Amino acid sequence: MVMRPFSMYLNFKTGDLAPTDRINIRKLSDMRGMFLDPDAEILILKKEDPIVYSFSERTLPEENGHLQLAITTILPGKIGEEYFMTKGHYHRRPDTSEVYLGMEGEGCLLMQTADGDFDSIEIRKGVVAYIPPYWGHRMVNTGKTPFIFFAVYPGDAGHNYGDIEKTGFVKVLIEKEGKPLFLDNPKWRKMG
Amino acid sequence: MVMRPFSMYLNFKTGDLAPTDRINIRKLSDMRGMFLDPDAEILILKKEDPIVYSFSERTLPEENGHLQLAITTILPGKIGEEYFMTKGHYHRRPDTSEVYLGMEGEGCLLMQTADGDFDSIEIRKGVVAYIPPYWGHRMVNTGKTPFIFFAVYPGDAGHNYGDIEKTGFVKVLIEKEGKPLFLDNPKWRKMG
Repeated sequence: MVMRPFSMYLNFKTGDLAPTDRINIRKLSDMRGMFLDPDAEILILKKEDPIVYSFSERTLPEENGHLQLAITTILPGKIGEEYFMTKGHYHRRPDTSEVYLGMEGEGCLLMQTADGDFDSIEIRKGVVAYIPPYWGHRMVNTGKTPFIFFAVYPGDAGHNYGDIEKTGFVKVLIEKEGKPLFLDNPKWRKMG
Repeated sequence: MVMRPFSMYLNFKTGDLAPTDRINIRKLSDMRGMFLDPDAEILILKKEDPIVYSFSERTLPEENGHLQLAITTILPGKIGEEYFMTKGHYHRRPDTSEVYLGMEGEGCLLMQTADGDFDSIEIRKGVVAYIPPYWGHRMVNTGKTPFIFFAVYPGDAGHNYGDIEKTGFVKVLIEKEGKPLFLDNPKWRKMG
């Protein structure tokens, strides 16, 4: 039985995708311990539990030969000095790529290998980023408006969030005197 | 040796991709016999050899786990009553998908299986089309301006142009009283 083609509508300005199967919301409470400053996190969570980012998914077969697509919106904001960001992940099948296309706002793509090799790409509307196999990836909103990007990756890539949860990223992106600044992450260590 | 990440800039309005490894130009003389009206084709080729479409490619490994990406511009125009279109193809590895994202202009995505099952999707800016495994695909410019779309597909999908060259598509898209109209393609036959 051959699957039939289908279409959706992606609003380039708002990041709305329709029809979609699921909109996933990530609040600060879903990302406990991922930001550099635990005191700032606790202070914010005492008052509110802000949405950090959301992404829309369409359910597609998790099979080799298929593709997955997602549209993500990271809201503007900071935890202490550190910008709002995605959890970040490697692919469960690590030898798979991903393509990102910047749609709106200003952000930065952080990437690293399990060995600690680090790279980054500034993302704006129209920037196409190619994340090759073996590079874990996280997006960061470095602007004052929602940061929206479209992603396509292989159907059987899967997500490995666990390794990033354990070690974080090699570098963190904070705001210093109104500009993004990379700091070495004191929590970073190579996966044993 | 792990491949490094890289980025390009895609101009959403013009379809320019930079830096790119190759810009491929398809003129009418490259598509002889693909349009319905051979007399119209001959008449045009006596005067000129118009560009029908062009696409920019970045060379990426043709390997499972990688992705390929391309940006295509189909110029507005007709051969007889039939709109300018791409050659169309199946994937050499037929069980692979493709994602199209409409950027500018107005077009139509024609799709068919080798058995002659047919489907189509109108493409505008923001329309995301999912072409599942086994569906051959062709884009048609049904508007008065350049029709621009972005494509992502698996690294090892490859192209099979030959089957479409032999049989054409199940349906052709012509302009009738200023509007697109599907006609059955008299040349169509199932691949034996």
